[in-house]
Amino acid sequence: MHKIGVIDIGSNSMRLVLVGLYDSLSFRIIDEIKETVRLGKDMDVDEQLHPYRIEKAIEVLSFFKKVCSASGIDTIVAVATEAVRKASNQKKFIDRVFNETGIKIRILSGFEEAYYDYFAIVNSMDIKEGLVMDIGGKSTELIWIKDRNIKEAISLPIGAINLTEKFSLDKSMDAPNIEALNSFIKENLRTVPWLKNIIGLPLIGVGGTFRNIGKINKKRLNYPLDHSHNFHMDSHEITEIYNLIKDKSPSEIKKVKGLSKDRADIFFGALTAVNNVVEFCSISEVCVSGNGLREGIIYEHVLGGKKPVEDVLDFSLNNMINYYRLNKEHSNQVWNIAASLFYQLKPVHQIKISSNKILKTASLLHDCGIHISYYHHEKHSFYIILNSPIRGLTHREQLIAAYVSAFHRKDEFTINNYTHKKLLSQEDLLLIKKLGVILRISESLDKSMNGNVEELQCIIEKDKVKIKISSIFSPNMEIEDAMSAASIFNKLFDRKLIIE
Amino acid sequence: MHKIGVIDIGSNSMRLVLVGLYDSLSFRIIDEIKETVRLGKDMDVDEQLHPYRIEKAIEVLSFFKKVCSASGIDTIVAVATEAVRKASNQKKFIDRVFNETGIKIRILSGFEEAYYDYFAIVNSMDIKEGLVMDIGGKSTELIWIKDRNIKEAISLPIGAINLTEKFSLDKSMDAPNIEALNSFIKENLRTVPWLKNIIGLPLIGVGGTFRNIGKINKKRLNYPLDHSHNFHMDSHEITEIYNLIKDKSPSEIKKVKGLSKDRADIFFGALTAVNNVVEFCSISEVCVSGNGLREGIIYEHVLGGKKPVEDVLDFSLNNMINYYRLNKEHSNQVWNIAASLFYQLKPVHQIKISSNKILKTASLLHDCGIHISYYHHEKHSFYIILNSPIRGLTHREQLIAAYVSAFHRKDEFTINNYTHKKLLSQEDLLLIKKLGVILRISESLDKSMNGNVEELQCIIEKDKVKIKISSIFSPNMEIEDAMSAASIFNKLFDRKLIIE
Repeated sequence: MHKIGVIDIGSNSMRLVLVGLYDSLSFRIIDEIKETVRLGKDMDVDEQLHPYRIEKAIEVLSFFKKVCSASGIDTIVAVATEAVRKASNQKKFIDRVFNETGIKIRILSGFEEAYYDYFAIVNSMDIKEGLVMDIGGKSTELIWIKDRNIKEAISLPIGAINLTEKFSLDKSMDAPNIEALNSFIKENLRTVPWLKNIIGLPLIGVGGTFRNIGKINKKRLNYPLDHSHNFHMDSHEITEIYNLIKDKSPSEIKKVKGLSKDRADIFFGALTAVNNVVEFCSISEVCVSGNGLREGIIYEHVLGGKKPVEDVLDFSLNNMINYYRLNKEHSNQVWNIAASLFYQLKPVHQIKISSNKILKTASLLHDCGIHISYYHHEKHSFYIILNSPIRGLTHREQLIAAYVSAFHRKDEFTINNYTHKKLLSQEDLLLIKKLGVILRISESLDKSMNGNVEELQCIIEKDKVKIKISSIFSPNMEIEDAMSAASIFNKLFDRKLIIE
Repeated sequence: MHKIGVIDIGSNSMRLVLVGLYDSLSFRIIDEIKETVRLGKDMDVDEQLHPYRIEKAIEVLSFFKKVCSASGIDTIVAVATEAVRKASNQKKFIDRVFNETGIKIRILSGFEEAYYDYFAIVNSMDIKEGLVMDIGGKSTELIWIKDRNIKEAISLPIGAINLTEKFSLDKSMDAPNIEALNSFIKENLRTVPWLKNIIGLPLIGVGGTFRNIGKINKKRLNYPLDHSHNFHMDSHEITEIYNLIKDKSPSEIKKVKGLSKDRADIFFGALTAVNNVVEFCSISEVCVSGNGLREGIIYEHVLGGKKPVEDVLDFSLNNMINYYRLNKEHSNQVWNIAASLFYQLKPVHQIKISSNKILKTASLLHDCGIHISYYHHEKHSFYIILNSPIRGLTHREQLIAAYVSAFHRKDEFTINNYTHKKLLSQEDLLLIKKLGVILRISESLDKSMNGNVEELQCIIEKDKVKIKISSIFSPNMEIEDAMSAASIFNKLFDRKLIIE
C-alpha cells in the first residue's frame, strides 16, 4: 500500500487528508485532520496574512508533517487557495513554511481550484450537467458542467469570511445590513454572463457551508442517514433554512441543530450567497457534494491524469471489490446471472430498467459482509453497502441495494430505522423483495463458485416461469439451493418457479 | 493469503469451512457450506453406511471439492467422526471417496474428536475450568477442562440421531417413551466415574443442538445479539426449554421459534441428554460454544501445533489489528496511555480493575471503523467491534467495548437496541461514559500518532485532576485536543481536568 497526504490550506480551515492507495485503482481515506486557522481573516487592511495567523498556520503544518511521518506517507501534496493567492506577503509565508517544515506549497489559481472541484464531482457523482458552487473563506468558484466537461468556470471574491467581515454579520444582522449583503452578492452574480444561460439545472454544492446546510436539513427532517455526499434537497428547502437563520441573533444561530459551532459566526453570509444563486439560476434541486478540491487532487493521483472515469458506479464498485478482496469470478458470475434474469423476467417483475444499477451493486457486493464475520454476513453486507463510499448511486438506491443484498440469504429482513419518506416508498419495499429474490436465485446458481452455469433461458407462462440452464457440470446442487427461494418467488410473481 | 478447506463428515451433517490465513497468525472464516446428509442414519441393522446415503455423501463431497478448487484452496483437511468410525463398510467408503473426488478422509478417534473440541474452546474462550459436551449425530464427547488442559475425556454412544431412532422420538413422545430415554441417558452418564467429581462447573456446549438451544432461548428473551459463540444461559433456562419441547407433538416442535427445520425431528433426544447432564453435574451455567471440531483443526493449522494461545483476548485482538491493517504503533500507544490513566485514576473513576479488558479492546480497535468509511468511523468501529469474532470477552464486555470505542469522538451516542437486561445494566451506561472519556483523552494525546507522549502522571486533588505529561516534542496540539473532553470529564468525575 502506497500512502499520500493532501494538505489544503484554505482561507477558513486547514486540512490534512491521508489516503491509502491499494492495487487496481482502489483507494480509501484513512485519516483527516481539520484545524480552523482562519488564515484569510483580518487581511482587509493591507492584504497581508496576519502575523498571529501565520504562526498558527506554521504550528499546524508542523503538526501535519509529524502525522504524515508517523503514518508512513510517501508523498505530500500541499495546496493553498484564495487567502495565500491574494496575500502580498505570500512569498515570505511560503518560504518560511518550506524552511520550517519542509512542506512545499503549491498555490492554485482560481481556475485550478475550480478544475479540482469539477474533477472530484465528475468522478464521484453520476451527473451529466449541473452548476457547481464551492464557497470557501474568501472566494466562490462557479463551474458549469456540461456533458461531464467544464463548460465555464469563474472564481468570485465572495466567501464566508469576507462577506462576514464586509457586512459585520457576526455583530448585527438587521434588515438594511442583510439587504446590502444580498445586493452585493447579486451584483457579483450579474458580472458572470454565462450564468444567465443556465436555468433549471441542479446545483452541486461543495465546501463546509453546503455540508452544514445539508446537516441542518437532515436534523429538521430526521433524515436517518449520515452520508453528506450526494444528499439532495429541493430548492425551497434552501429558502426555508435561509429564512430560519435570517431571523436569529448570532448567539441563537450557534444553537441551530446540525450547524458546526466553529462555523456558526461565518455561516449566514455564505448561506445568503447560496440562496441568491438558487434564485438567480432558478435551480431545480441542490445536491451536497462531500467531495471537492482535496478529492479532486486525490482522483488525479489515483487515475494518474486528468481523464475522468468512464462510469462512476463501475469504478466505485471495482474499488470495493478490490478493497474487500472479494472473489471476483463469483461476484461477476452472480451479477451476470442476475442481469440475465432481470432482463428476461421484465414482463413478470415489471421493474424499471434503471433499477439494474441497484441489482448490480447488490450482486457484486453481496458477500462483502463476510469481511466483518461470516456468520450473519447478509446483515453485515447490508451495513457495509449502506455505509461505504459507493459513488454513482443516490442515497435511496444505495439503501435499496443494501437491503437487496441482505435478502440474499433471508426470507425476511427487518426494515426499520430507514423508512423515511425521502428514502423509501411503499413500492420500494416490494422492489427490494423482487430484486432480493432474483439475487438469491442467482447466488444459488453459482453456489459452487466455479461459473458452472453457462447460460440460462427464461420461459414465461401464465402460471409458471421455467428457467432452463446450460452448465458445465451437473447443476443439481445449484438448482436444489435455488429452489429454496421458490415459495417467495411464487408469492411475489404469482407464478410457479421451475428450474431445470 | 493462504487458504485451507476443512471438511467435517459428521453423522448428521457434512460441512465445508473455508478459511483465509493472513500474516501474523491472523485468520478468518470466508465461507461455510452445510448439507444435512445424515450419513449415520439407518445404520442400526448391520452397522453399514446406507448405500443411498453414501451416494448423497459422494455427491456432496464432489461439490465441496469444486468449491475448494474455485476458491483457490491449497490444503483440504477432511475428517470423519462416529458414523464412519463405526461403519463396517468404512474402508470401502473411504476408498470410493478418494477415487472419485481425490479427498483423503482422516477418521478421528473419540479422543481426537474431544481433543479438537477442547482446542477450539481453550483458544476461543477465557475459561479455566469447565465441562465440555459435544453432541453429534451418533456420539457425545464429554471433556473436563481444568487449568486450560484436558483432565478427562470420554466419548459416549449417545447422539441426536441414535437417540431418536432408539426411542422412535420422531413418531411418539409419550411419557413411558420419555422415561426410557431419560433412564438410558442417565445409565450412560453413570458409567463415567469422573463425572461425579465435577459439581457446579459451567457446561460448555458444542454442536448444533446447543446452538439451537441458544437460538430458542434468544427468541424467548428477545435477546438483541446474533452471536452464537459464548452465549450464556442459567441452567434453569435449559430445564424450561426442555419442558417447553417435551409437551409438544413432532409437528409442533417444528414451529418452535429459533429451532432449525432440518434439526427439529432429532432435537428432543439430544436436548434430553443436555438436560440430564445439567442435573447430573449440578451445572452452574450453560455456555454455547460456536467453535468445535472444525475450529479446533483450524487453530491447529494457524498455531502450527498443539500449544494453545497464552491469552485468548490478546490473540484475538492481534488478529483484528492485522486483519484491519490498523496502525499498530498508534493503537498500542493509545492503549498504553489509556491503561496508565485507568490505573492511576482508579480512586476517581472507581471502576473494577477487571474492566481493563474492555478498555483494552476499545483502545486497540478504536479506529477499525475507518475500514468501512473514515467519516463517522466511530459508528462503524461500534458495528465492527460488536459483530466481529473477538474472543475472550463476554457478550456484555464486547458490547460495552463497542460503545466505549464509539464514544471516542462523540459526546453522545445513542444506546438503543441493546439495552437488554442480560446485557446492560444502568451502571453499565455510566461505565461506558467513564471508559469513553478515558479513551477520548488517550486518543487525543496521540493525535500526531508518533508516540509523542512518553509518560504521564496523574495528581488527584479534591476538586481537580492534573495530568502531567512528558513528551518528545511540544504536546500543545495533543493537549488542546484532549481538553475538548474536559467538560464531560468534569461532569462525570466532579473534578476539573488540567493537562500540562
